[in-house]
Amino acid sequence: MASDKPGVPRGTRDFSPVEMVKRNFIFDTIKSVFRKYGYQQIETPSMENLSTLMGKYGDEGDKLIFRVLDSGEYFEKTKISKNIRLLIKQTIDSGLALDATVSEIKEEDLPLLAKMIDKSRVAQRQSEKNLIDFLDEYFNSRHLANEISEKALRYDLTVPFARYVVMHQNEIAFPFKRFQVQPVWRADRPQKGRYREFYQCDADVVGSASLLNEAEFVLIYDEALSKLGLKDFAIKINNRKILSGIAEIIDKSDNIIDLTVAIDKLDKIGLDGVTKELMERGFSEADIEKIKPVILLEGTNAQKLESLRLALITSDIGLKGCEEIETVLNYLATGKPQTATVELDITLARGLNYYTGAIFEVKTNEVAMGSIGGGGRYDDLTGMFGLKGLTGVGISFGADRIYDVMEELGLFPATSSQSTQILICCFDKEGEAYAFAALQQLRANNINAELYPAGAKLKKQLDYANAKNIPFTIIIGSEEMESGLLTIKNMETGVQEKLSLSEIISRQITL
Amino acid sequence: MASDKPGVPRGTRDFSPVEMVKRNFIFDTIKSVFRKYGYQQIETPSMENLSTLMGKYGDEGDKLIFRVLDSGEYFEKTKISKNIRLLIKQTIDSGLALDATVSEIKEEDLPLLAKMIDKSRVAQRQSEKNLIDFLDEYFNSRHLANEISEKALRYDLTVPFARYVVMHQNEIAFPFKRFQVQPVWRADRPQKGRYREFYQCDADVVGSASLLNEAEFVLIYDEALSKLGLKDFAIKINNRKILSGIAEIIDKSDNIIDLTVAIDKLDKIGLDGVTKELMERGFSEADIEKIKPVILLEGTNAQKLESLRLALITSDIGLKGCEEIETVLNYLATGKPQTATVELDITLARGLNYYTGAIFEVKTNEVAMGSIGGGGRYDDLTGMFGLKGLTGVGISFGADRIYDVMEELGLFPATSSQSTQILICCFDKEGEAYAFAALQQLRANNINAELYPAGAKLKKQLDYANAKNIPFTIIIGSEEMESGLLTIKNMETGVQEKLSLSEIISRQITL
Repeated sequence: MASDKPGVPRGTRDFSPVEMVKRNFIFDTIKSVFRKYGYQQIETPSMENLSTLMGKYGDEGDKLIFRVLDSGEYFEKTKISKNIRLLIKQTIDSGLALDATVSEIKEEDLPLLAKMIDKSRVAQRQSEKNLIDFLDEYFNSRHLANEISEKALRYDLTVPFARYVVMHQNEIAFPFKRFQVQPVWRADRPQKGRYREFYQCDADVVGSASLLNEAEFVLIYDEALSKLGLKDFAIKINNRKILSGIAEIIDKSDNIIDLTVAIDKLDKIGLDGVTKELMERGFSEADIEKIKPVILLEGTNAQKLESLRLALITSDIGLKGCEEIETVLNYLATGKPQTATVELDITLARGLNYYTGAIFEVKTNEVAMGSIGGGGRYDDLTGMFGLKGLTGVGISFGADRIYDVMEELGLFPATSSQSTQILICCFDKEGEAYAFAALQQLRANNINAELYPAGAKLKKQLDYANAKNIPFTIIIGSEEMESGLLTIKNMETGVQEKLSLSEIISRQITL
Repeated sequence: MASDKPGVPRGTRDFSPVEMVKRNFIFDTIKSVFRKYGYQQIETPSMENLSTLMGKYGDEGDKLIFRVLDSGEYFEKTKISKNIRLLIKQTIDSGLALDATVSEIKEEDLPLLAKMIDKSRVAQRQSEKNLIDFLDEYFNSRHLANEISEKALRYDLTVPFARYVVMHQNEIAFPFKRFQVQPVWRADRPQKGRYREFYQCDADVVGSASLLNEAEFVLIYDEALSKLGLKDFAIKINNRKILSGIAEIIDKSDNIIDLTVAIDKLDKIGLDGVTKELMERGFSEADIEKIKPVILLEGTNAQKLESLRLALITSDIGLKGCEEIETVLNYLATGKPQTATVELDITLARGLNYYTGAIFEVKTNEVAMGSIGGGGRYDDLTGMFGLKGLTGVGISFGADRIYDVMEELGLFPATSSQSTQILICCFDKEGEAYAFAALQQLRANNINAELYPAGAKLKKQLDYANAKNIPFTIIIGSEEMESGLLTIKNMETGVQEKLSLSEIISRQITL
């Protein structure tokens, strides 16, 4: 047993009791709102098969997936070792020069290598490499990882959810409204606010094209964040079809990404900057003139929609996008958000290749902070697992950022009903016996209470109460035992009173 | 994107909404009792450094730890590939015969190999192996795993807790009462009731030697399991010091494991069987005669203690164990368990090498099932990380088994306040608008409610309500919109009534 100074892996965190109370406050609040809107919780395994995860997040995403080794006995029987042994033997036996190229190698000389070349996509591209470089690349590549690992930690909750829906499609009552709050893992370079393990907090509904769902997600954001105490935040909405329409009216449907990347910077670089960037990206002056009314969209959401409709008059898909936005806004005229402003923002383009309809993003105006939530509608999430044509829409809460916002604004409740309410202090075994009976009565009345075991000085006991932020202490000495009147101390104000246990109980319960 | 039929890794599970409601019921109940007794929640990362985990669970345990590959970019730069390349080159260049033994190899011929031998404990034992066999073993061993993996998934919550306490010792107010409910991973062969990912649910206190803690753990078991609806269960207690005493009185302190393994079988094989087994394990007839009163312990706990004290009269440690048990039982005479029977059971020896004082185990008498909880006192948990002399005691709830017990006994509540209470059904866009306003009023009164989006037949909507186990539906047609009296249907009884929305709200809230 090593006695090195212990630590946690880079990019991971312990959560202390104080942090857990705050995190639970956030998660419990969001979950209660999800439930109020009919969303049901599921959980999926932390590990998924590699085949479930790979290829779903792009090349960059794939690299950030944490693979889990086939462990124990199984790992010791892996093929690597046999392959290495055979390869070394075959290489030496064949008498091949190390600078022979792969294409010069005859199958009968290096049968294992031939098989590797056959199996490996890396290998097929390497036939002009020399032997050593090929082996280097082969063992260096993901191919090796695939030989010793067949599962990985989930990278997000969306792909596992799609896998879940396809696997359980016969048990599910559609529309399926699910929420999920679990950690995900990414082998990202850790930095401030970016972790290798963090919780995602998602709600999605699949199997319903109704825009009622979009409206309800706006209301879910509004209700959850209001309950958490946020007082000024915006839910920005856009629609992929509007972005498609903008590209269509200038006949640049293929350049929609260039277009949205440039428009997205309006806030930072202004119209001149956007114009410059658009021209650099190959848009003509005529193009820019045509989409200027869109870029400079102003006024209320209704006014923006009117301008958009005029600008997109020749684009069916663009008009469809306007209609969808209008429908969502109409729902929200009946079911009004209590706190949030809802803003149509055509510069919003998160996960563009993924979303097919509504796009959401949530920002607080009280603190400088990236988005604290986002989501949108997608039309073929489960297609990757063979279930085509199931439309869905979903949102995500950025719990770590919400935590930071609430910390900065001092929004966490000073006391928590989850914490100990009363610490009983005593001085000797006799006092402890008396105190223990009182303690069990407090608990029988659902008061979270503790007894400091006999033998410590009062100061130490009170320090303990302060360290745990326990609001009340009861001190039991010989006088208290005789009179039955217990000294109860408010730890914040320092005020002490003498009360009977039943008085204390009725007072605590009504607190 | 593959369209293979998706699955989950062997030994892992999805949890459906129905299962999640039940699992939350169990975890929420246990957590609320932990909190009532002053325990605070922490969470630790899913991944720990290998150095934190390895060597803590014995050789068999180490093999079951799931290692996580150093991922992405980092993995591609791993040393393996360089080593393989160098080794092949050096092997060929040196002209060494493949059957040369490791000890024949000169450092200047194969410098890399020399370094490997130097670094690897495996290697040091292999000097008479030939080169190929050595390489085989080297790359085949855990050594390779260590080169490409430096972290692993936690195997339990106890070692991460010890690591947490040592890391955060300066922030913690001792005695530190923490609970933790998180998944753990074990590369065990999956079988019925044994999973590769499962939740553990632990509470521990470190830094307090008071036996009050032991008594409170008995009360925590009692209260949590009573709240879950269990009506007949036993909390068995023992003390490692009593087991030491029994070994001591026959002068067989070194054979304590043989002794306890044999005694443990009393239930199954009776006294004759135990006698036979003890003799096979090298105990004399005189030994057996001397410990027979202990093995045959009968009567109430007080009577058992009296017999034990007589039998252990010559063993200080044995008497100390009796005294500790008595102290715990004295606490429990004041703070009485509501449901559990507390049984002194000297055959109880779980994790013997680990525990130093109290040992607990919980069994239900209503269903045939292994233990549903267990724990005990340990005197040097944090010693493995360099913090000596911190005593602790802890318990664990077996959540999966408790789930199975409750399922078998039908103890889960038929309805859950977490689920949707009312589904509103409508037929057209006009009805939907009316319904949406009503829906938001229900939610404003904290009633979990859903609206089925317009366009589906009533049967489909009612099927959806039944599938989600929603107890009430409101049906909104043109008549309802005119009169303002809504048809509310009790989905279980089929009874329909016409009520105003405010009547529905006040009735639901008081339900």
